[in-house]
Amino acid sequence: MIKILFIFFTLALGSVIKAQNITSYIQQHQGRMLEEYVKFLAIPNVSTDTINILRNADFIIRMMQERGIKAELLHGRTKGVTPAVYGEIITPGATTTIGFYAHYDGQPVNPKQWHEGLEPFTPVIISAPLENGGKIMGPYKKGDTINPNHRISGRGSADDKAGVMTILNAYEALVKTGSMLYANIKFLFEGEEEVGSIHLNEIFELNKQKLQADAWIIIDGPRHISGRKTISFGVRGDVNVHLTVYGAKRPLHSGNYGNWAPNPALHLVQLLASMKDENGKVLIKDFYNDVTPLSDLERQAITKMPDIEKRLKNELGLKETEITGKSLGESVMIPSLNINGIAGGNVGSLAANVIPVKAEAVLDLRLVKGNDWKKQVQKVINHIENRGYHVLQNEPTDEERMKYDKLIKIETKHGYNAQRTSMDLPISKMIQSAVQSTSKEPIVLIPSGGGSLPLYLFEEILGTKVISIPVVNYDNNQHAENENVIIGYLWEGIVTVAAVMKMK
Amino acid sequence: MIKILFIFFTLALGSVIKAQNITSYIQQHQGRMLEEYVKFLAIPNVSTDTINILRNADFIIRMMQERGIKAELLHGRTKGVTPAVYGEIITPGATTTIGFYAHYDGQPVNPKQWHEGLEPFTPVIISAPLENGGKIMGPYKKGDTINPNHRISGRGSADDKAGVMTILNAYEALVKTGSMLYANIKFLFEGEEEVGSIHLNEIFELNKQKLQADAWIIIDGPRHISGRKTISFGVRGDVNVHLTVYGAKRPLHSGNYGNWAPNPALHLVQLLASMKDENGKVLIKDFYNDVTPLSDLERQAITKMPDIEKRLKNELGLKETEITGKSLGESVMIPSLNINGIAGGNVGSLAANVIPVKAEAVLDLRLVKGNDWKKQVQKVINHIENRGYHVLQNEPTDEERMKYDKLIKIETKHGYNAQRTSMDLPISKMIQSAVQSTSKEPIVLIPSGGGSLPLYLFEEILGTKVISIPVVNYDNNQHAENENVIIGYLWEGIVTVAAVMKMK
Repeated sequence: MIKILFIFFTLALGSVIKAQNITSYIQQHQGRMLEEYVKFLAIPNVSTDTINILRNADFIIRMMQERGIKAELLHGRTKGVTPAVYGEIITPGATTTIGFYAHYDGQPVNPKQWHEGLEPFTPVIISAPLENGGKIMGPYKKGDTINPNHRISGRGSADDKAGVMTILNAYEALVKTGSMLYANIKFLFEGEEEVGSIHLNEIFELNKQKLQADAWIIIDGPRHISGRKTISFGVRGDVNVHLTVYGAKRPLHSGNYGNWAPNPALHLVQLLASMKDENGKVLIKDFYNDVTPLSDLERQAITKMPDIEKRLKNELGLKETEITGKSLGESVMIPSLNINGIAGGNVGSLAANVIPVKAEAVLDLRLVKGNDWKKQVQKVINHIENRGYHVLQNEPTDEERMKYDKLIKIETKHGYNAQRTSMDLPISKMIQSAVQSTSKEPIVLIPSGGGSLPLYLFEEILGTKVISIPVVNYDNNQHAENENVIIGYLWEGIVTVAAVMKMK
Repeated sequence: MIKILFIFFTLALGSVIKAQNITSYIQQHQGRMLEEYVKFLAIPNVSTDTINILRNADFIIRMMQERGIKAELLHGRTKGVTPAVYGEIITPGATTTIGFYAHYDGQPVNPKQWHEGLEPFTPVIISAPLENGGKIMGPYKKGDTINPNHRISGRGSADDKAGVMTILNAYEALVKTGSMLYANIKFLFEGEEEVGSIHLNEIFELNKQKLQADAWIIIDGPRHISGRKTISFGVRGDVNVHLTVYGAKRPLHSGNYGNWAPNPALHLVQLLASMKDENGKVLIKDFYNDVTPLSDLERQAITKMPDIEKRLKNELGLKETEITGKSLGESVMIPSLNINGIAGGNVGSLAANVIPVKAEAVLDLRLVKGNDWKKQVQKVINHIENRGYHVLQNEPTDEERMKYDKLIKIETKHGYNAQRTSMDLPISKMIQSAVQSTSKEPIVLIPSGGGSLPLYLFEEILGTKVISIPVVNYDNNQHAENENVIIGYLWEGIVTVAAVMKMK
């Protein structure tokens, strides 16, 4: 115990000195770093866009090579699947190994939903979010003055090319400032995170030895809303459920057939409305079962989180939250059911007087520790069946149409479970200390973030601990249109990652 | 009474003879008629596309001039509004005047929803609906053999350029076959029907004298599903209500904010689900009030309609109808509430794990005789307010966002009321007889069709009777993607219209 405290002391002291070196190194090299980052963001990275995904992997390999890291692609068993990019630095005499993970793929984009002047894969500098009166400053050009309060707009700018960028630049800065490393360092950049990391298990199984580490550090997700530096000890699990409800085989004139032909959009809204009440409580049977209770330390950490409720509501234009009386920190410790999207017929200027042929919705189920994703999906399916639906895996056949009056197609891709690392492990406390050493304000400790990553795989297959250090701004429009990152957060992220990378 | 019967007899006899003349005239000239029609369909006719709408009006004027009808544009008081095209034929010594109405504008199109190979404004011949295994035969070329069972695909092909086409070709055929006319004939082609005929009242008021007639015959809508020739004595009224429910000001990551930030798509589905029960009954207070009861003759006509329930359900792939036990004929005599479209976030491959910023729905309220459209909309608004919503006309301000937890924008464009002409008026019976004279099968008499047209304006402003003679096939995908018309129905439509045009 004394030894650990001693290590903390020297580590904290050393880090403060080095953090200054790192900061001035970044200041000298920020132009080049930004130039490289903008090129990286310009490569489309939707997970299903195989050709461009490989261009991203190539770009990362080049970034690594330029920094003296030997890089290679890691594949799973399945052929033709997006590879992960891997590299390692062996430190002579090191007895510990720390891995750094980020992902380079991004969520799907609908360019039409982006603000005028913004394109998902044409990164530009903006002075602030455009919806808050920000201005488009134009593309970054070599030699431009860089304002750390400005942002870069583009898919992946925050989630999670920022992870790749900060990890590799932190390593570069450590090497170039002559900092001593005490641990072996491993790098892993995944290309399928946004489609549920569906082959990460295979990559882990086939490369188990290579990926051994005392801990893997995940650089992904936003810092706490207060803006303070953050460590997150867990993530929610996640699974999407796609629902399609069917009406007549062809669109019908709503005058000639209204009242007679069933409307699938009505059926779908009735079904979805039956899943959640007006107070945000999910009405699906046993939905809140299986949850592992919080430890005292975790409960305390939640209580200590800065209170951002009022500020956040103001900023988002919300009078009330979904579950009255629950803070954001508490809300994400509860399993959730969200409607990501709903569509049937057309709205706005394309709206026509028809009874649509089908209506679709995509649900997002977030899971907490204790939940099993398959079981959670089954609860939803049971609910739907109890409402009189016949569940299909495919489009209905003519026979099925005449046999059942309520037909629904339910599609579920791979999901994954939640993960939570104990906050009182030695490695947990070392990382806390390293991150705290780079910040004057108390850092925020989150027992589990709201977002999802397949972190359980690190524990289950590799047998290592896993802890997240998010580096980007919370208002980054992650997963949505107008995604962006505050440039200064990238510089601070590099400093944070460097501090953890050189832990003893 | 005897006199009327006598007229019926001679009329029926004369018509059968002339119908043969007309039929052989069509056979000789069908190539030219089809060629002209295809050119007409190629001109985009979405009501809001002002430039193209005027091109349609020009095309109609040329069609009329080529048939010796002096044509002119009729305007309302409002400037810059789509004009109607008008023409008249004065028959020396005539004491009665019959008007023929159709509309040349079409419903909005979303080309992405059209079948591969079909485009809204590139008419092609198809052997049958493509979803039923039909094939694309290609564009119609001069000299091609014309199969009357084939169809022409394109927006407006059925609704309602077919009306313009059959009216003008019926007149041509009568003139060219030397048929005697007994009445003055008037022509009116509207360009704003699909946006609610919002200026037809002005056009009527400013041209009241010109538009005087004993009856206006509306050539619009589909023949009865049985395929029999049809007369419809009324139409439902119609009004659209656009709803937009608001969530946070920016899209939020469903992991980081799920359970905390309210989801507007959930709010919207809960609201819509509250409007209608599982048996298709609208739950909005007083929704079914104000309805004028059916007369005995109307009730009998509904009973006599060919029973198409089973066939239609089979064809549409529906096991059950919305209101169990009500036939299609009965269903359209009841006010309706239909969800035309719903949208929030994205579905399918564009789906992302977000809480959307807003969710929208478009409702279609169909009205029956006795309903007032403004009153019907107010019932919906009252229902929404009773569910705790604060109703807006515009996007919410920051102040409104912080004052009310449930915000909805409700937009209603102009609506109109239902119309119903008595089936036992002399003019009603004359038209019955003329149409019946062109068909071996008993024709179908519909007290009120399901569709809507602003026919009440003919009664209220012009003080004339109004009766509809639909000519196109019922499975025409009117208002939706892949709209089409069976070519043989066009030829039969010309015969039907000609018979009514030469009534004594």
